[in-house]
Amino acid sequence: MKIQAPYLLFLGDATDNLSIKMAKGVSDWRPQLCTGQFRLEGCSVTTDQPDMTIAQAKQAGAKTFVLGFANSGGTIDEKWIPYIVDALNNGFDIVSGLHDKLSDIPQIKQLAAKLNLQLIDIRHPQQKFNTGTGKLRSGKRLITVGTDCSVGKMYSSLSLEQAMKQRNFSVDFRATGQCGILIAGSGVAIDCVVADFIAGASESISPANDPEHWDVVEGQGSLSHPAFAGVSLGLLHGAQADAIVVCHAINRDSMRGISQRSLPSISDTIALNVASARVTNPQAQVVGITLNTSSVSEGEALDICHTITQELGLPCVDPMRHGVDSIIDKLCAEI
Amino acid sequence: MKIQAPYLLFLGDATDNLSIKMAKGVSDWRPQLCTGQFRLEGCSVTTDQPDMTIAQAKQAGAKTFVLGFANSGGTIDEKWIPYIVDALNNGFDIVSGLHDKLSDIPQIKQLAAKLNLQLIDIRHPQQKFNTGTGKLRSGKRLITVGTDCSVGKMYSSLSLEQAMKQRNFSVDFRATGQCGILIAGSGVAIDCVVADFIAGASESISPANDPEHWDVVEGQGSLSHPAFAGVSLGLLHGAQADAIVVCHAINRDSMRGISQRSLPSISDTIALNVASARVTNPQAQVVGITLNTSSVSEGEALDICHTITQELGLPCVDPMRHGVDSIIDKLCAEI
Repeated sequence: MKIQAPYLLFLGDATDNLSIKMAKGVSDWRPQLCTGQFRLEGCSVTTDQPDMTIAQAKQAGAKTFVLGFANSGGTIDEKWIPYIVDALNNGFDIVSGLHDKLSDIPQIKQLAAKLNLQLIDIRHPQQKFNTGTGKLRSGKRLITVGTDCSVGKMYSSLSLEQAMKQRNFSVDFRATGQCGILIAGSGVAIDCVVADFIAGASESISPANDPEHWDVVEGQGSLSHPAFAGVSLGLLHGAQADAIVVCHAINRDSMRGISQRSLPSISDTIALNVASARVTNPQAQVVGITLNTSSVSEGEALDICHTITQELGLPCVDPMRHGVDSIIDKLCAEI
Repeated sequence: MKIQAPYLLFLGDATDNLSIKMAKGVSDWRPQLCTGQFRLEGCSVTTDQPDMTIAQAKQAGAKTFVLGFANSGGTIDEKWIPYIVDALNNGFDIVSGLHDKLSDIPQIKQLAAKLNLQLIDIRHPQQKFNTGTGKLRSGKRLITVGTDCSVGKMYSSLSLEQAMKQRNFSVDFRATGQCGILIAGSGVAIDCVVADFIAGASESISPANDPEHWDVVEGQGSLSHPAFAGVSLGLLHGAQADAIVVCHAINRDSMRGISQRSLPSISDTIALNVASARVTNPQAQVVGITLNTSSVSEGEALDICHTITQELGLPCVDPMRHGVDSIIDKLCAEI
């Protein structure tokens, strides 16, 4: 699966910034992949891409129509079908990160087939995976892991990739979630893979490469999350990480979706992930910590990062506020 | 999904005991669920069930025709279709543990629909699962875990259930693999579930129950196996085990399917599983160790079990040779 850029980001009539996370992610991190956004009456949120119609976007060179919004059920509302049909008739491939499949809608499936256009349901991987082998691959790999879900693993991964590129590393971001896949143009939604093949799919995401090449693998979930730890462990094993970056969101009361369960400490998260990663890469080590500090002031954020750096002897930064240079320094020094 | 007993075990023309593991498992553990076996010319293995034709089995009251053999690709050979059709025409439901789906064969699908008979593809769960909640359920649970795959977790689980029944425990065996499902008549092939739902499916397998009721949950894979640890972890988290039994096969050179990777020690396996289980049940503890000692003599087996019991302070037995009474004693004393 390879998603053709550039994209037209369809926001529908979204009114909630969280619901357009996928569109915003690609607009923030890969503006060069976006031609514009297409919003309907009532839409009150924006990606900062220019507004345009489907026909205007076609004129401007866009190739893929992206359903850039989500709803709680992950359904494709019937009211979007005319816009999808219009996009197909204008020669666009269609991408969806919703749970409902585009290819389950007969009208859309038939039209796409007739026009020889792609329907890409990111959450329904079409590839056949093998089970994991555990065999060490050449090349180097970094993975982001979390104290919880939704703590900033994708943003941390992209920040690390960007900083490594600036230092002339040969490096690729490897996407494992729907937003990351749109940003990278390819990848595997690892939590949608059949359980038997998690580690095998993870191995395929960061294949053997030049000895000095780095893959930055987007982590998922958390080894401490009672719902998703299996995904996190299979992904970690398959990644065979040389380097691990631990991500954490400060001031979170409880684990995502699990009331009254407090987050594990950063040091426990380090210990658990290093022990697990060493099952497939005995050299695995943590090279830094990233925090989402958006809930506190600049000054407080710096204080917190400083305290953690002192306590754990590892660089600790908020990538959005401080960059990740200190982590790359550590990486260069240690691996 | 509920499989109707009794079964007619179809062995095809199998010539290898390993390939009829599913038929042998149910025949060994639940002979009362089996009416007989149906073998074709060339079949050189047996379950010790009486041989009969489809028509004879129907006469004898069998309700479900079980494809009791496997091959490396998990395919349904075209040569079996006439026998499946014959079984349907005799009013049998059909069960398959193969990777290929019965319902993907149009002739079989149409005939089953017409006759209102069930096609049960054990490896393709049809249920909708929720993601895990981590919320403690009432009732007690024991899970078997392994140093590796295929070390005797299902046989250990069934031995434990049998011994607990003999002591008048209220207890159920909860199946998580295809052979176990045939034995239990229901269950979920946990490694066939979409990754996001492993823990949630596991929670559904051993639902809330009376406070004194025990579920014995069949473990899968191993936390130390580079291909399957994600499945093992999600299953363990969802099971919320109070008691863990560690299973091990002696004299195995390397982990199953992974050459040159030695097995973890029993003590490391205990530590890793207890730490992981306590994410969802802080009371989790190991109550015993079961060994597959089939590669050594009676005397050697006893010596090995005795040595491990001394070293680790936990009962250690080969369930097939020594029973599991010492483990049940420990369970009664500790939980």
